[in-house]
Amino acid sequence: MTEMTLTENDDPDHAYEINTLTVGAVLDAVEAGDADQLTALLDAQHSADVADLLEQISGKERAALLTLWGDEIDGEVLSEVDEGLRAEVFEHLPDTAITEAVRELETDDVVDLVEDMDAPQTERLMQALEDADRVAVEQSLQYPDETAGRLMQRELVMAPADWTVGDAIDHLRGEQDLPENFYNVVIVNPFLQPIGTVALSSLLAEARSVSLSAIMDEDFRTIPATQTQEDVAYAFNQYHMVSAPVTDDEGRLVGVITIDDAMEVLDEEAEEDIMLLAGVGDESLSGSIMETTRLRFPWLAVNLATSILASVVIAQFAATIEAIVALAVLMPIVASMGGNAGTQTLTVAVRALATKDLTPANAWRVIRREIAVGFFNGCVFALIIGVVGLLWYGSPMLGVVLGLSMIANLLVAGMAGILIPLALDKVGVDPALASGAFVTTVTDMIGFFAFLGLAAMMLL
Amino acid sequence: MTEMTLTENDDPDHAYEINTLTVGAVLDAVEAGDADQLTALLDAQHSADVADLLEQISGKERAALLTLWGDEIDGEVLSEVDEGLRAEVFEHLPDTAITEAVRELETDDVVDLVEDMDAPQTERLMQALEDADRVAVEQSLQYPDETAGRLMQRELVMAPADWTVGDAIDHLRGEQDLPENFYNVVIVNPFLQPIGTVALSSLLAEARSVSLSAIMDEDFRTIPATQTQEDVAYAFNQYHMVSAPVTDDEGRLVGVITIDDAMEVLDEEAEEDIMLLAGVGDESLSGSIMETTRLRFPWLAVNLATSILASVVIAQFAATIEAIVALAVLMPIVASMGGNAGTQTLTVAVRALATKDLTPANAWRVIRREIAVGFFNGCVFALIIGVVGLLWYGSPMLGVVLGLSMIANLLVAGMAGILIPLALDKVGVDPALASGAFVTTVTDMIGFFAFLGLAAMMLL
Repeated sequence: MTEMTLTENDDPDHAYEINTLTVGAVLDAVEAGDADQLTALLDAQHSADVADLLEQISGKERAALLTLWGDEIDGEVLSEVDEGLRAEVFEHLPDTAITEAVRELETDDVVDLVEDMDAPQTERLMQALEDADRVAVEQSLQYPDETAGRLMQRELVMAPADWTVGDAIDHLRGEQDLPENFYNVVIVNPFLQPIGTVALSSLLAEARSVSLSAIMDEDFRTIPATQTQEDVAYAFNQYHMVSAPVTDDEGRLVGVITIDDAMEVLDEEAEEDIMLLAGVGDESLSGSIMETTRLRFPWLAVNLATSILASVVIAQFAATIEAIVALAVLMPIVASMGGNAGTQTLTVAVRALATKDLTPANAWRVIRREIAVGFFNGCVFALIIGVVGLLWYGSPMLGVVLGLSMIANLLVAGMAGILIPLALDKVGVDPALASGAFVTTVTDMIGFFAFLGLAAMMLL
Repeated sequence: MTEMTLTENDDPDHAYEINTLTVGAVLDAVEAGDADQLTALLDAQHSADVADLLEQISGKERAALLTLWGDEIDGEVLSEVDEGLRAEVFEHLPDTAITEAVRELETDDVVDLVEDMDAPQTERLMQALEDADRVAVEQSLQYPDETAGRLMQRELVMAPADWTVGDAIDHLRGEQDLPENFYNVVIVNPFLQPIGTVALSSLLAEARSVSLSAIMDEDFRTIPATQTQEDVAYAFNQYHMVSAPVTDDEGRLVGVITIDDAMEVLDEEAEEDIMLLAGVGDESLSGSIMETTRLRFPWLAVNLATSILASVVIAQFAATIEAIVALAVLMPIVASMGGNAGTQTLTVAVRALATKDLTPANAWRVIRREIAVGFFNGCVFALIIGVVGLLWYGSPMLGVVLGLSMIANLLVAGMAGILIPLALDKVGVDPALASGAFVTTVTDMIGFFAFLGLAAMMLL
C-alpha cells in the first residue's frame, strides 16, 4: 500500500487531499537543502500527489525544490503536472533530467509533454528518444491537437486471428517490451486492420488450443485517429470501453487509447464547461496574480458591454423613473430573475449538448418545455412579486406591472436559454463559451424594457 | 463492429449522437405495432443508445414502445436509463420482464436499479435472484447511498499469495462463473485481507512456475466500503487505477470497483456541480413541464429573496435617485460587474475544492490572489467606467463615483467569491449548492450601496 505518512488524510472528509504536514516537511527539507530527506519524502508519494504538491507551493518554493530535486524527477511527475505550469517547471530542470525522465514514458505521455515544450527543448528530447519511440511520437504529433491521434499510445499487443490462445500466451511470455498497461489483444487482418479484440480475461480462461478467432469480440468500436478527444471520452463513458484500437484513414491499426486517458479527458472537458459557463478561461490555481487578472479581463469586459446596453435601455425611461422613483428600486428584481431563469435553462442545454442528450430528435420537445416552464414559473413569481409590490408601495397597478413584466421576462429567458445555445452549437461555436453573455444581455434588456415600458404606459 | 445503421452519425460533428433516422424508424415500428421490426432495430443498437432513445422520445411514445417491446428488454438497458426515468419505465414493464432482465446483471448494477424501485417491486426482484446474488445485493444495500459499498461489484477473482501463475491460470480455466470484466487478481491473506494485486497482463507474461507473491503489486490502494463515491472517482482519476479492492471495517475484501463505474461517477459529480452552480437541481431532460417547473422554483425563489434585499438597499437612496436619475441608469452596471467577478472566483474555488487542488496548504495564497485580482481588475474597470460615466453625463464626479464603487465591488467580489465557498466547505455544506446565492447577494448589496452611498456623499 502506498505510504500515506502523516495524519490529516485520515479524516474521511479529506481523503486523498494533499497533506499539509507532508507539504510542511517537504518545504523544511528544501529550506535545509537536505536532498536525501527531500527525495525520501517525495519518493513515498504517488507521482500525481507530487505534481499536486508542486502546484500548491509558491513559485519561489517550486524553484528551490526543483533545483534541489530536479535530477531525480521522473517522467510520471512531469506528466501529472498541470499543463499551465509545465513550461515553468521545465525551466528549472536540466535538459539531461528531462530527457532521462521522458525516456521511461509511454508515447502518449511524451506527446502530451512535447506539446508544452519550446522548440529547442523538443528537439533535444526527440534526439534522446529511442528511434522507434521518436518515430511514434512524430507520427502522433502529425494529428491535430485534442484528437485521438494525440491521445493514443503506440505500445499495444496485436495478433493474427489464426493464432491459438497458446500462441498468444507464448508470444506474451517471450516479449520483452510489453506495454505498461493493456487489457486486451487486438486481432488484425493481414492489412493491419483490427477485426476483433480478445480480453486478457478470455485469454486466461480459455484452453491453449482454442483459436483466437473463436473467442474474439467482433462487436467492438474503433476510434478514428482524427476524432476529437471530447468524442473519444464520450464513447468510453457511453459504451463502457476499457481500451479501443485507433485507426488511420485506411482503417489500419495505429495505436490504442485506454480508459484512464479517456477519463482524464472527460474530467478536463467537464471542467472546461464549468469554467466557460462562469466566464473563466483556461486558468490554473497556481497562476500568478497578473496572469489571472489578464485572463479574467475579457469576460468582464464583455459583461461591461452588455450591462451598458442594459443601461441604455433604462436611460430611455429616465423621465418615467424621475416621476416614480419606486421603479428604480424594483427594476433590478425583474432583470435578475430573468437572468437566473435564463442561466438555468442554458446550463441544462449546454450540458445536454455535451452529453448528446439534446439532439435533433428531441430539440423541439425541449424547446417547448423550456418555454412552458418559463411561462409557468413566470406566472407564479408574477403573483408573488405583484403582492410584494402592492404591499411595499400600496399601488395595485405597480403590482400588475411587476407581475406582467415578470411573466414576459421569464418567458423570454426560457426561449433565449434554449435557443441561443442550440443556435451556437449549430454554427459550430462552443455553446458553453458564449451563451451566457448572450442570454443575460437578452434578459437584462427585456427585463428593464418590459418593466419600465409597461410602467410608462400604465402608471403615468 | 456494432451496426451504425443509418446516415447522420457519419457526420463527425455528431459522432455517437443518437440518429434521428433510427429514432424515426423505431417510432414507425411502434406505431405499426410491428414487434419483430422493433426488436430488430433495437437489438442492433448498444444498450446505452437504446436507453438514450427511450429518454429522447415523448412519454406517450415511451409507453407504447415499452408495451410492445417490454418483454425483450435486457438488464443492461435498464441500467443505462437515466435514474429520473426509471420509475416510469418500471411501471410499463411486466414484473417477469424486470426480474428476467435483472438476473443477468452484475450485483453493482442490480443495487443501482433497486435504489429506484418501490418496495413491492424490490421484494419480487430479490426473490427472483439466485441466493448468492441476493445476499450480495442485500449486503451492498446496507452501505449508505453514494458510497463505495453501493458502487462495488461482488464478482471478483482472488487468490492466495502462495499460488503460482500456473495455479491461477488453471483456476481461471476451471471457473464457470467469472466476472464479466476483470483486470487483475486480488491476492488475499488467510483473513481475506487484500495484500496485493496481480494484473492479468503479468499473469500472461510470466512463466507458469512463478509465484504470485513474486509478481504481485504491493503498491495498490484499497477503498473503504464507506468511502463516498465522489472520493472513489477522484482516486481512480488521480492514481490511474483500473480496478480497486473494496474492504470492510476489518480490512477484509468485500468487492471490487472497476474504472468504468468510477468514470460514470466522475461524470455525474461534474454534472452535479455544473447544475448546482447554475441553480438547477437533479432534473432530467425527459422530465415533464410541471416537474421541471417545480424543480426550478426553489432556486428562483432564493434569487427573488436576494434581489428584494438588493432593492431594500436601493430604497434607502430613493431621494438621491430622485435628485439624480442618472444614478438609476448606471447603478446596475456596478452590481452586475461584481456579480460576474464574484461568480468567476467562486467557480474556480468550487472546482478547485472538488479536485482537491484547493487545500489548507495553499488556501491563504489563493485568497490573497483572488483579492488582488479583484482589486486590479477593479482599477482597470474603474478607469473604463469612469470615462463612460463622464462622457455619457458630462460629470467628472459621477465618473469618480462609478470608478470608486467599481473598485470596492470587485474587491468584495473577489473576497466573497473565495471565502464563502471555503467557509461552506469547512462546515460541510456543498459549496456548489449554496455559494452562488450568497456571493451575488453580497455583490448586489455592496454594488448598490457603494455606488448610491458614494453618490449621496459626493454628488448631492
